[in-house]
Amino acid sequence: MAIKKVGILGATGTVGQRFITLLSDHPEFKIAVLGASARSAGKPYAVATKWKQSIAMPKEISQMSVKACDPKEFSECDIVFSGLDADFAGEIEKSFRDANLVIVSNAKNYRREPTVPLVVPTVNTDHLDVIKYQRQENKLDRGCIITNSNCSTAAVVVPLKALQDAFGPIAQTNVVSMQAISGAGYPGVSSLDILDNIVPFIGGEEEKIEWETRKILGSVNSTISGYELTDNVVSAQCNRVPVIDGHLMCISVKFAKTSPTPDQVREVLANYVSEPQKLGCYSAPKQAIYVFDDSTPDRPQPRLDRNNENGYAVSVGRIRSDSIFDIKFVSLVHNTVLGAAGAGILNAEVAVKKGLM
Amino acid sequence: MAIKKVGILGATGTVGQRFITLLSDHPEFKIAVLGASARSAGKPYAVATKWKQSIAMPKEISQMSVKACDPKEFSECDIVFSGLDADFAGEIEKSFRDANLVIVSNAKNYRREPTVPLVVPTVNTDHLDVIKYQRQENKLDRGCIITNSNCSTAAVVVPLKALQDAFGPIAQTNVVSMQAISGAGYPGVSSLDILDNIVPFIGGEEEKIEWETRKILGSVNSTISGYELTDNVVSAQCNRVPVIDGHLMCISVKFAKTSPTPDQVREVLANYVSEPQKLGCYSAPKQAIYVFDDSTPDRPQPRLDRNNENGYAVSVGRIRSDSIFDIKFVSLVHNTVLGAAGAGILNAEVAVKKGLM
Amino acid sequence: MAIKKVGILGATGTVGQRFITLLSDHPEFKIAVLGASARSAGKPYAVATKWKQSIAMPKEISQMSVKACDPKEFSECDIVFSGLDADFAGEIEKSFRDANLVIVSNAKNYRREPTVPLVVPTVNTDHLDVIKYQRQENKLDRGCIITNSNCSTAAVVVPLKALQDAFGPIAQTNVVSMQAISGAGYPGVSSLDILDNIVPFIGGEEEKIEWETRKILGSVNSTISGYELTDNVVSAQCNRVPVIDGHLMCISVKFAKTSPTPDQVREVLANYVSEPQKLGCYSAPKQAIYVFDDSTPDRPQPRLDRNNENGYAVSVGRIRSDSIFDIKFVSLVHNTVLGAAGAGILNAEVAVKKGLM
Amino acid sequence: MAIKKVGILGATGTVGQRFITLLSDHPEFKIAVLGASARSAGKPYAVATKWKQSIAMPKEISQMSVKACDPKEFSECDIVFSGLDADFAGEIEKSFRDANLVIVSNAKNYRREPTVPLVVPTVNTDHLDVIKYQRQENKLDRGCIITNSNCSTAAVVVPLKALQDAFGPIAQTNVVSMQAISGAGYPGVSSLDILDNIVPFIGGEEEKIEWETRKILGSVNSTISGYELTDNVVSAQCNRVPVIDGHLMCISVKFAKTSPTPDQVREVLANYVSEPQKLGCYSAPKQAIYVFDDSTPDRPQPRLDRNNENGYAVSVGRIRSDSIFDIKFVSLVHNTVLGAAGAGILNAEVAVKKGLM
Repeated sequence: MAIKKVGILGATGTVGQRFITLLSDHPEFKIAVLGASARSAGKPYAVATKWKQSIAMPKEISQMSVKACDPKEFSECDIVFSGLDADFAGEIEKSFRDANLVIVSNAKNYRREPTVPLVVPTVNTDHLDVIKYQRQENKLDRGCIITNSNCSTAAVVVPLKALQDAFGPIAQTNVVSMQAISGAGYPGVSSLDILDNIVPFIGGEEEKIEWETRKILGSVNSTISGYELTDNVVSAQCNRVPVIDGHLMCISVKFAKTSPTPDQVREVLANYVSEPQKLGCYSAPKQAIYVFDDSTPDRPQPRLDRNNENGYAVSVGRIRSDSIFDIKFVSLVHNTVLGAAGAGILNAEVAVKKGLM
Repeated sequence: MAIKKVGILGATGTVGQRFITLLSDHPEFKIAVLGASARSAGKPYAVATKWKQSIAMPKEISQMSVKACDPKEFSECDIVFSGLDADFAGEIEKSFRDANLVIVSNAKNYRREPTVPLVVPTVNTDHLDVIKYQRQENKLDRGCIITNSNCSTAAVVVPLKALQDAFGPIAQTNVVSMQAISGAGYPGVSSLDILDNIVPFIGGEEEKIEWETRKILGSVNSTISGYELTDNVVSAQCNRVPVIDGHLMCISVKFAKTSPTPDQVREVLANYVSEPQKLGCYSAPKQAIYVFDDSTPDRPQPRLDRNNENGYAVSVGRIRSDSIFDIKFVSLVHNTVLGAAGAGILNAEVAVKKGLM
Repeated sequence: MAIKKVGILGATGTVGQRFITLLSDHPEFKIAVLGASARSAGKPYAVATKWKQSIAMPKEISQMSVKACDPKEFSECDIVFSGLDADFAGEIEKSFRDANLVIVSNAKNYRREPTVPLVVPTVNTDHLDVIKYQRQENKLDRGCIITNSNCSTAAVVVPLKALQDAFGPIAQTNVVSMQAISGAGYPGVSSLDILDNIVPFIGGEEEKIEWETRKILGSVNSTISGYELTDNVVSAQCNRVPVIDGHLMCISVKFAKTSPTPDQVREVLANYVSEPQKLGCYSAPKQAIYVFDDSTPDRPQPRLDRNNENGYAVSVGRIRSDSIFDIKFVSLVHNTVLGAAGAGILNAEVAVKKGLM
Repeated sequence: MAIKKVGILGATGTVGQRFITLLSDHPEFKIAVLGASARSAGKPYAVATKWKQSIAMPKEISQMSVKACDPKEFSECDIVFSGLDADFAGEIEKSFRDANLVIVSNAKNYRREPTVPLVVPTVNTDHLDVIKYQRQENKLDRGCIITNSNCSTAAVVVPLKALQDAFGPIAQTNVVSMQAISGAGYPGVSSLDILDNIVPFIGGEEEKIEWETRKILGSVNSTISGYELTDNVVSAQCNRVPVIDGHLMCISVKFAKTSPTPDQVREVLANYVSEPQKLGCYSAPKQAIYVFDDSTPDRPQPRLDRNNENGYAVSVGRIRSDSIFDIKFVSLVHNTVLGAAGAGILNAEVAVKKGLM
């Protein structure tokens, strides 16, 4: 397979940095262009960024000259990954699509568009098909926007997809999240707000989980472009906690038609296989869902389990019956890998394999 | 009012230390005896304990000679507060009651006994009445055990009591807790388990919240001794978080008969007045429930709000409608004050005022 | 004594908030005016500020209307405390002095002026005398600027003053600091920089410790206005650590003429009495230096000891001989009390007692 | 090169776990036997241990049956790595040597023996030669004990070795450490002691830094077995900080004969090449000392830099002139890699390459 040239928008931000660490030794994608604000343009990447990853900045990246987020600078790119803030993503990503470029975006701006796929790669890569309608709509042969979910949504939809496939529609889902500080970018959360503390509020986050879950677990309508949301009633309460990486969620689920036992749930989750695994994608986890059984009732934990499968797995534990819902459990996602940059990369790998780019 | 002499069992532990800081300048109770393990007996308190409070150890306490937990050593005490671990509390507290002493205990051992009151002071001090049945049962004219709730239960029952009084029975309550490390005592939680981490499991905690809530919000049956549990179905998921003091809970509530608006709930909580307030007890909070409105959607927070009313208030915020339940909100309790030592002290103040000791 | 009306500049910042918590129940000073940026002016204080103190905002303060930092707004104030950032303090404080107002400032801008006293209240309140030269210079009968030290300097100079008084000049002082995040204001240090981390650099901090120590421990030259720095060679290395309040310093000291034993040092520190104590000032600590002996070799610790004497004491422990210097020890200061707002307040109390205002 | 079979003593502890993560995919060493306490013996490793590494437990290791720490169980091992606690290491390691086994130990027990090499692999692998005297003394043809340094010592001796080689003897070294919690093992430091806190004391740690530095930087006396300590006067002050991995040290150095400039120091450190690098050892870092220059004055930081070169490098920054000593700088080591298990592994690699095993 020919190596694809890729660009990164918002390369100096937290998500952009994660794109770099995940792509710097990727066998199929080669970083060709780094884009950031006008203020950074023209500077070597090492000067333009405040590197906050616990892996050292790759040498060859550090010397690259940062470009402005202008489609002309990215014309050679087969794929452009976007880690832009929502404040800028709307206009910039549109201009890139208009220039017939393929945008794989972590920003929220286009997630609700009917013909823009909103994809968590180990859940609903079949939704990628709608980019053909998007291209038709925009009269483009190649340009399109593909989005991945909000970071916390990923921890919800991966296990729910496996459960929905096995046990039918889900009626109600209650979610309480404990979310890592890296989800807020840099400088993001002030240390005075989070040391010895929890902040029980993240602006806009609950609405994202509640709506995105229904689109991702919904179906693509193949005759007319667009989506049908599932009927799943989702209620979310989001908290910021003093954890660096890894969103942990307490999830309670009520099914519409059945009431599986904890053992059945455990088995279904452990045996779940997603499309990127079947396609043999490079970044696909060997195990899409890590399941902890009753012998380790205190897992998953962010620090110990967020890096399972290099951050592309979701880890689930404490599966048990619930007195209000049917089942409750704990779910963990690496918020900047499967919850952000990694989702975009694996989505792109799938799209390439399926000949969609 | 004559000053009462009090003793403290388990005086060197985390809860014992909190009893000391709360009692050392109490106008009605005077610390007369400190009890701890045989290993500590005979030593000055300052030598026997590893003081972990952020308030300096009171000078006069530091010199007191620690006694063994033997009823004979506490014979002069009007009230004996117990901060004993459950491993020891069962036998020792019984021996104290048998010696006709009044035990106000934070331990879980006797909470489920039908004639032992399980009381959160700003909720159900009317339950203190059952000690007369306990004394009859044990053929004692004075000796009895009074218990307070598990620390996390307190954050649940205070707002639920106000809501139940105003809107009638509660059908379902879903609770997800984020609990401080001080709740596990000392050395308690290893720092390797909790720095940059969350542990989604606390042994026995969920069962305590689920059962204790129903006893505390239930009614005392005045003809035959004992309790009737409420029908409220409570489901709890408990997490340990890197916070020193203060348990924060995400609570969702479904009422049996009504569906109040967030504004109605806010008003009811803000106007709730508990019995210790009406009695003018020394430690009673001026406001039993601190309510944060929509102008501060990120409150309560443990570090900023746990000390409201010296730790005797519960703080509630983010009151909003829920798509699955009727109402959801966030509730915070100081786990070693109203959730432990402070509850015992205020319970004792009420019992004294009511002539029950 | 007549109650003094006081104003607070920079009232919405971290230091300003601490001024408010310390002054809100002060028996001699009454908060009359709160000043902040033009953006805040006209708003109620509760709206203008993001309160980050662990003590609730005083009710009467929350309703006060914030004023611009204009001398006219503060004309009724006997004393104006300044918690302004250095970026603004230079111009504003000068304009206040020019308006014949008394400024007690925590900002660094005027600390190096020869006729501006740089005072840690439990160290060198005798330096307050130079304000008479400052007034002469500026042709004012009342207006003047009094400064307190940088937060970390306070932990150094309090024990050094006691040692210098007892054992003569100090030749060399090596300081390594571990400083709390509250020292950087709000939002200040990003949580991504400090969770599970240390930052071994604080811009400008080392120079402040090295120079301020020499001015504070130096002498006022009473014939010509101004100071003589001590000869003490001070070398500082500063680190930011994940602690909320309390700067901890490892200090090594070499004397010019003697070499006292650890026991002698311990005795001198424990017996040190500062001028505010002798004058009976309201905020003066009973004990200016808390000394931990060998029975508690792991103290002082920020969380346990920063509130000793309401934050007006310095705590010292681990006093021992050194193989390179004479003596080494650990010193702790509450950086926003004696290291900032509290120093200003106690300086003002002394100045009032001495008839200097 | 034939693959060596290795055993691990103390395999369930923190250092033992790190040995496992570092050895599980080592091309030259194959884990053959895992030893732990009698309590663990006979159990599968996954059951016997509480895994606290952020990398998942290797599958093949999880199934291995743990053995008692008895030489008979390890007879097939070419090398036995010991992560034993000092309480047990003394007797067990001796019995292993007596059984003619090669022990590479992280314990402190034999570090001070004249014929036991105390080696930091990027500093003094020439000291490995003394094992021939050790074997003579014990009348063994193969059995011997090789030790690595205390974790914090490693951060000191690596840069000091480079400096001593270039600029001659060092007269004085002042060290203030900020040490990670993983250095204390599990459960180790209580979270109540370290959240929002620093503990300015680690029992025995300062003495280790002060003495070990002098042995490691000293010379092997080749005619009579044993060491000569350097004359370097080392003074250490040790603090525990809320960091998971990575010891950060503020170091001040005075040379006996010269006074190099910061630029000279920077160049010498950046160009330093250690013996394992020259020998091409598998685990040897490409760069033994990472040097940060003035463009990044806030580095190294534990979270960002501890994993440089997989934890086998020491990172140094903030190199500058000092007013008391000649030079001061900040040094960081990964305390469980180069400061513990990694040091043992790289020492063993060197010993194998040199034909000493």
